[in-house]
Amino acid sequence: MTEKKRYFIENLWYAAAWEYEVAEADNKLARTICETPLVFYQGDTDNYIALDDRCCHRAAPLSIGRVEGNCIRCMYHGMLYDEKGQVVEIPGQQHISKSLKVRSYPVVAKGGMIWIWMGDKDLANEDDIYDFPPLSDKENWRGFDKEAYLHYDANWLLIVDNLADFSHVAFVHTNTLGGSEAYAYSTLPENIEKHDDGFSMERWHRDSNAPPFHAKVIPASEQGDKLDRANIVSMRLPGVFLMETLFAPVGWNEEIDGRSNVREYRNCQFMTPETRNTTHFFWNYMHNKDMDKPEVSASLKESLLEGFMEDKLFIEDQQKLLELSPDFVPRAIAADEAFVHFRNKWAAGLKAEDAANPLIHKENKRSIL
Amino acid sequence: MTEKKRYFIENLWYAAAWEYEVAEADNKLARTICETPLVFYQGDTDNYIALDDRCCHRAAPLSIGRVEGNCIRCMYHGMLYDEKGQVVEIPGQQHISKSLKVRSYPVVAKGGMIWIWMGDKDLANEDDIYDFPPLSDKENWRGFDKEAYLHYDANWLLIVDNLADFSHVAFVHTNTLGGSEAYAYSTLPENIEKHDDGFSMERWHRDSNAPPFHAKVIPASEQGDKLDRANIVSMRLPGVFLMETLFAPVGWNEEIDGRSNVREYRNCQFMTPETRNTTHFFWNYMHNKDMDKPEVSASLKESLLEGFMEDKLFIEDQQKLLELSPDFVPRAIAADEAFVHFRNKWAAGLKAEDAANPLIHKENKRSIL
Amino acid sequence: MTEKKRYFIENLWYAAAWEYEVAEADNKLARTICETPLVFYQGDTDNYIALDDRCCHRAAPLSIGRVEGNCIRCMYHGMLYDEKGQVVEIPGQQHISKSLKVRSYPVVAKGGMIWIWMGDKDLANEDDIYDFPPLSDKENWRGFDKEAYLHYDANWLLIVDNLADFSHVAFVHTNTLGGSEAYAYSTLPENIEKHDDGFSMERWHRDSNAPPFHAKVIPASEQGDKLDRANIVSMRLPGVFLMETLFAPVGWNEEIDGRSNVREYRNCQFMTPETRNTTHFFWNYMHNKDMDKPEVSASLKESLLEGFMEDKLFIEDQQKLLELSPDFVPRAIAADEAFVHFRNKWAAGLKAEDAANPLIHKENKRSIL
Repeated sequence: MTEKKRYFIENLWYAAAWEYEVAEADNKLARTICETPLVFYQGDTDNYIALDDRCCHRAAPLSIGRVEGNCIRCMYHGMLYDEKGQVVEIPGQQHISKSLKVRSYPVVAKGGMIWIWMGDKDLANEDDIYDFPPLSDKENWRGFDKEAYLHYDANWLLIVDNLADFSHVAFVHTNTLGGSEAYAYSTLPENIEKHDDGFSMERWHRDSNAPPFHAKVIPASEQGDKLDRANIVSMRLPGVFLMETLFAPVGWNEEIDGRSNVREYRNCQFMTPETRNTTHFFWNYMHNKDMDKPEVSASLKESLLEGFMEDKLFIEDQQKLLELSPDFVPRAIAADEAFVHFRNKWAAGLKAEDAANPLIHKENKRSIL
Repeated sequence: MTEKKRYFIENLWYAAAWEYEVAEADNKLARTICETPLVFYQGDTDNYIALDDRCCHRAAPLSIGRVEGNCIRCMYHGMLYDEKGQVVEIPGQQHISKSLKVRSYPVVAKGGMIWIWMGDKDLANEDDIYDFPPLSDKENWRGFDKEAYLHYDANWLLIVDNLADFSHVAFVHTNTLGGSEAYAYSTLPENIEKHDDGFSMERWHRDSNAPPFHAKVIPASEQGDKLDRANIVSMRLPGVFLMETLFAPVGWNEEIDGRSNVREYRNCQFMTPETRNTTHFFWNYMHNKDMDKPEVSASLKESLLEGFMEDKLFIEDQQKLLELSPDFVPRAIAADEAFVHFRNKWAAGLKAEDAANPLIHKENKRSIL
Repeated sequence: MTEKKRYFIENLWYAAAWEYEVAEADNKLARTICETPLVFYQGDTDNYIALDDRCCHRAAPLSIGRVEGNCIRCMYHGMLYDEKGQVVEIPGQQHISKSLKVRSYPVVAKGGMIWIWMGDKDLANEDDIYDFPPLSDKENWRGFDKEAYLHYDANWLLIVDNLADFSHVAFVHTNTLGGSEAYAYSTLPENIEKHDDGFSMERWHRDSNAPPFHAKVIPASEQGDKLDRANIVSMRLPGVFLMETLFAPVGWNEEIDGRSNVREYRNCQFMTPETRNTTHFFWNYMHNKDMDKPEVSASLKESLLEGFMEDKLFIEDQQKLLELSPDFVPRAIAADEAFVHFRNKWAAGLKAEDAANPLIHKENKRSIL
């Protein structure tokens, strides 16, 4: 018996899937989260259910099974599981041992996103979910017709790093989300607040030009106007990024001027580890002007996606280089402050769960491989 | 020096290749069996020869060499091997050390299948091969014009498991080989016999409808007739599955009624490990009515293949989930009786060979990699 | 702390890239050598620069950065590196720690090839490069319009083995570079000289036919003439192969006859390990008659490439079989003399560097993966 390395904090809510993804998967979505293969389906009271996607009998995937009300049937030998993961029917067999079961997970849908709790059920409190109100507030915010998903071949913390230092916007996104390299030289993060579960901060670029993604959706009359631009960011464990973006007239003072002349966006990005080296990336980008014009949202989606693909190139290359270079020790710069704090909090959480419940590797004498 | 894990029983006959496969590979078929790369070729007296597919000199594959009578020449530097694997010519060199050789393996062709003995040559007895008489009996049985082969990305014992519990036919093959989910609820295996090298059993579905694959080949006049359906199965180490299938009039009694009104099939499936995680799967399905009609055999092949692809989906998914989940411990149900016996016999055979001849890992100071 | 296996001698010049490859990669070529990811670029005085292709900050690749004079800028957060690998600018940060740097490597261009020294800078002496004069002597030798490159999925020493025993030409290249299997039976290496850093040798095939690649480029009047053919070879660590090929009238004696009736070729092949299992292979093949006819060089390139693809088939198959067979111990034949010497010298060099500077594996507590 040797100790196993723990890679993920269990007692956290993770973004698992947009609701429409389950529907589009014929109501039995297979998705791996924290290296755990899961099946998500919707029961007969529209509740979502998540079980280990591995029949307890011979490890056939339940996700190629059949949903029957709140139950799901393994279509290999017909075993039927209820929403708690208990086997309730075996064709051709009367007695069913209580030990025939798979693990079930607390699951909650908020704002179109299905959240899953990977740890101790008794500790799951849905108020702890970092719900993003604009996702639900369709009256005041318009997002994408269908919320977006990307798959990353990279550890999710590399994406957290990316979002925690906006100086990259100047170089990676010059022609898409950034606008100029000056952004990196002339702006700094402000009001960094460190929390037990993440951080928040602001970054202002005053008297600046509209970056390309914004210029594409504003009227001709505003083109060329100088702006005070702000990104107001919150990042929470395990990988929840929520952002308010403002484009205000130069010299804007909220208390005096109010927000009527301010163009605003709301952006969420949820990073969920699929494995230690791959990530589910969920996002939406919402606006509150010209809400009747679908082309605004379409343009924003296209611009943002273009920018995210620029990030993805860097981040997946980082992943490859780090895998090739296990001895690489990073060197810190001043701009690392926020993500170093975040990674320290993650490491502390892992350590605490390890102390409470060390993972042990046992030789598996009953493996069927 | 540390002990190495043994994955395969050596002293067994394994199905290696259909004879036509060697011919179609220009008489030098490369095939890996039990993680051993082999070359199969036919000598000048139509005998088959199997050698390690790795020149003893620098590990070039003999299978891209040239067959010369009973010999095969490595086409890298021209070394010639006889059918015992001994080097008998080195261009440009007079003396040839006796140590220049590769391993040869006992090989026997029966019923179109080439069988190989992976262990101690002195123990090889070709009478131990589980030959299937209908394969050779072309007068009474018609199989495929060309016997069939599939490659599985899965451990072969997962296919044994599949074939050892026919309740899966109800769910996996409802619309192809099964016919109804009732099969799993209303039938049970009968006459299970446990042998030292496998098991045999029967499964009857009385007063039932013809399953789709059968309905496709019977005359219009018999469509809709109720039938007594029997599958009479034998499974032997390492993975030899032989089956007799009967469709008889309801209430049929063989002693009184004979077999003239019975429609019969014969089926063989040979599962041979390529590696611990991949399998060579050989099969044929034979009928004895309408033997002059090629469309009958073509229809059966198409139906069976469709069914096997349904199995393959489950079995390869099991393999993936098991590789991801080394800690998975299967839970038993009543229907596992036969394959648990089979796996126990396999494990006992492995253990016995290990006791007699433990595998040792030595550091290879002469590796050329 | 445990000792790590060393795979490559560091204090050697390795062939890294043809000069045009850097230009074609927009002057920032990413190439891994000896399992070290590197970026190559040309500075403002046409000097070549090689740095670790991994920003010291978060391991982003510098090769997707921007060359600025002798500097290269990481385009993730804008850090600027000089040609010594020192960070000289961090946007938004005043003080720059001296510890912010990546490793730089001595680099020299000769004859169109960029050579890199992977070890201690103080020991790098560019006179030690095995430059091949015909590569630079455009007046007397014509090679390919663009020098050639192939990528091998094989350890580079397997290619050295190949080139160290020309008996393979008889069997692998019968119809391309060889001409007949007799070559292996009737010729032997001559004048083998063993050096501390490699070997040299000759192989003569007297009174022979022109091999196919040569027959394709000689005039009709010479077709069918018998020839004395010589390959005069030098092989040096780590994988530098230089060859003089002569086709002379039968009975030719250089002292009496001179070289005016001799057709000559010059060939270089540089094998550089990308990883322990993959190789960069650079080559050129030069002639000195009919230098005004581009079709001669084109024909030679096509013939040689055809031959090299024949080798590649064998060598990549050897690699696969050796990876599958870690216990394989090669058996020696007489023809192995040269490459066994070469491999012994390589092994001795590795051992000497290990004794001077053992590689140690330390647990990396600061890994960002």
